Amino acid sequence: MANIHDVAKLAGVSVATVSRVLNNHPYVKADKAAAVREAIKKTGYTQNINAIHLKRGKTCLIGIVIPFLDHPYFSQLANGIAKAVSNTDFKIVIFQTNYNQDKEIDALNMLKSKQIDSLIFCSRRVSLNIIKEYNSSGKIVLFEDVDIEGISCSYVNHYDCFKDALEFLFESNHTRIGICISRRKGTSSIQREKAFRDFYKSKNLDLLERDIYTGCLYLEDGAKLAQRLYKSGDCPSALLVTNDQVAAGLLTTFNDLGWSVPEDVAIIGFDNQQISKALHLTTIDIPLYSIGQLLVEQALLSETTKHEIDLEIVKRKTV
Amino acid sequence: MANIHDVAKLAGVSVATVSRVLNNHPYVKADKAAAVREAIKKTGYTQNINAIHLKRGKTCLIGIVIPFLDHPYFSQLANGIAKAVSNTDFKIVIFQTNYNQDKEIDALNMLKSKQIDSLIFCSRRVSLNIIKEYNSSGKIVLFEDVDIEGISCSYVNHYDCFKDALEFLFESNHTRIGICISRRKGTSSIQREKAFRDFYKSKNLDLLERDIYTGCLYLEDGAKLAQRLYKSGDCPSALLVTNDQVAAGLLTTFNDLGWSVPEDVAIIGFDNQQISKALHLTTIDIPLYSIGQLLVEQALLSETTKHEIDLEIVKRKTV
Repeated sequence: MANIHDVAKLAGVSVATVSRVLNNHPYVKADKAAAVREAIKKTGYTQNINAIHLKRGKTCLIGIVIPFLDHPYFSQLANGIAKAVSNTDFKIVIFQTNYNQDKEIDALNMLKSKQIDSLIFCSRRVSLNIIKEYNSSGKIVLFEDVDIEGISCSYVNHYDCFKDALEFLFESNHTRIGICISRRKGTSSIQREKAFRDFYKSKNLDLLERDIYTGCLYLEDGAKLAQRLYKSGDCPSALLVTNDQVAAGLLTTFNDLGWSVPEDVAIIGFDNQQISKALHLTTIDIPLYSIGQLLVEQALLSETTKHEIDLEIVKRKTV
Repeated sequence: MANIHDVAKLAGVSVATVSRVLNNHPYVKADKAAAVREAIKKTGYTQNINAIHLKRGKTCLIGIVIPFLDHPYFSQLANGIAKAVSNTDFKIVIFQTNYNQDKEIDALNMLKSKQIDSLIFCSRRVSLNIIKEYNSSGKIVLFEDVDIEGISCSYVNHYDCFKDALEFLFESNHTRIGICISRRKGTSSIQREKAFRDFYKSKNLDLLERDIYTGCLYLEDGAKLAQRLYKSGDCPSALLVTNDQVAAGLLTTFNDLGWSVPEDVAIIGFDNQQISKALHLTTIDIPLYSIGQLLVEQALLSETTKHEIDLEIVKRKTV
């Protein structure tokens, strides 16, 4: 494979002149430009854009750290990001981490070594202290509420959102509410659990630790939980579920087992995914698609920005 | 070092079957699974893609051309790709095209200018003639049946698969079957429509052109179609639907309107997504996750390879 030096040698000009011709730069004498073009043809030289990017310090690549791509929540977010990026000259590089810290650090190191220009964390396991260390490596954007100089973020106030949903269930006469969350130590889960505990305290109700269900992410997790709750004979009167897939698994399995929703157990989902519409699930609308676009805008801005995202309860038939 | 082809050859099965066994995928016959395990032992095959003799590029980036990321079919495929890549030093660059030709050509140009090492087309609009022009730019892998020198592919025989499903419905006494497809001019749709027409001819049945429903991709498309069919009073006795999302939209909406499935109308979906399990949908299992891994292996091998993927009908409660 011919490189720029081969072209220069054959054309009898400097590498800088070849570079000028390649970039349609003015002030190249006509005979030299012709010699360069002839040499390019003869050597079959292809311009390696990576080399140019290194010079300019711009790769036009935005890294996306995302735990899973096969989950509707994350794929919708990724879709919003990809759509926003598609209106620019940028491309996205996906780091599908499965919450593996090494993969997250790998992404940070690519930012540091200038292989990507910006990095968006859709969700993370790695500590904020580690992220801070890469602060000066390039633009980092987080999808959570942080206050770190130079790092932009968009976030949902999961505390308020959970509080609103719990109040709504309380108004509908539910006093024993269970919550289904994903990773207990995730930033969102911590806020949600706090809202849950504060709600019980504010209503002077007894909280049962066994009513906090963790590790719920996929439809099948909901189906399994429904079977467990049905068999146990010890089910809360309402379930606040942090994603529609799990809520759909709960709903369809309860129905299969002969329970009516909301008569036997009320359910609120989260995300307002298409499946929730089909199943008439009451859920919380989160504009993932728009958030994806917002994150890209933040990744491309030189200023540090911060946005709170509002959520709304969509009342259907499961409460 | 043995590769997946050597294992398949020794076991006397397809590469897709080996991939299914490696991924503990269900729906593999016991004797085939045993043969595969025996062949793995004999060849000393290891699934670590890094261990295979790979063509090492300079960017360690693999481009993925994919129309949408927010659709379960494509996101599961992308997930398989991302998972396979995560065992290597490579990263993926996503070209989310929304079937826009310019975006597809953009990806091909990035391959040509060596910004990526390989390019996998999950689905395309751009003509094969254009793709051929980039043949020497780097490794191109297509997820469809093509015979172009230097271009690898994995594919599903959509014709045979549709024929099998139609025969299954015919055995269940359905003689007026409707089909729901996505883009009418997509490569898969063309094969499927041909199978549909050939089936009607072979059974000496009259095909009604209005029983071919196009533009069906999302759950809401199925919901809308169900309402239209219910109101029209002119519904086939069975529907063969090319994705589970649409099938789920049809099923839940028919139920809402008071129709029973399969008594009033039978439904077969496609993909065997989680939603189909929850709704007891009869569907066609396509091992998207394994296919994603296969495509990556093909993208990293220097040889040109071709694999046919087997599909199976998963019989549940909607036929």
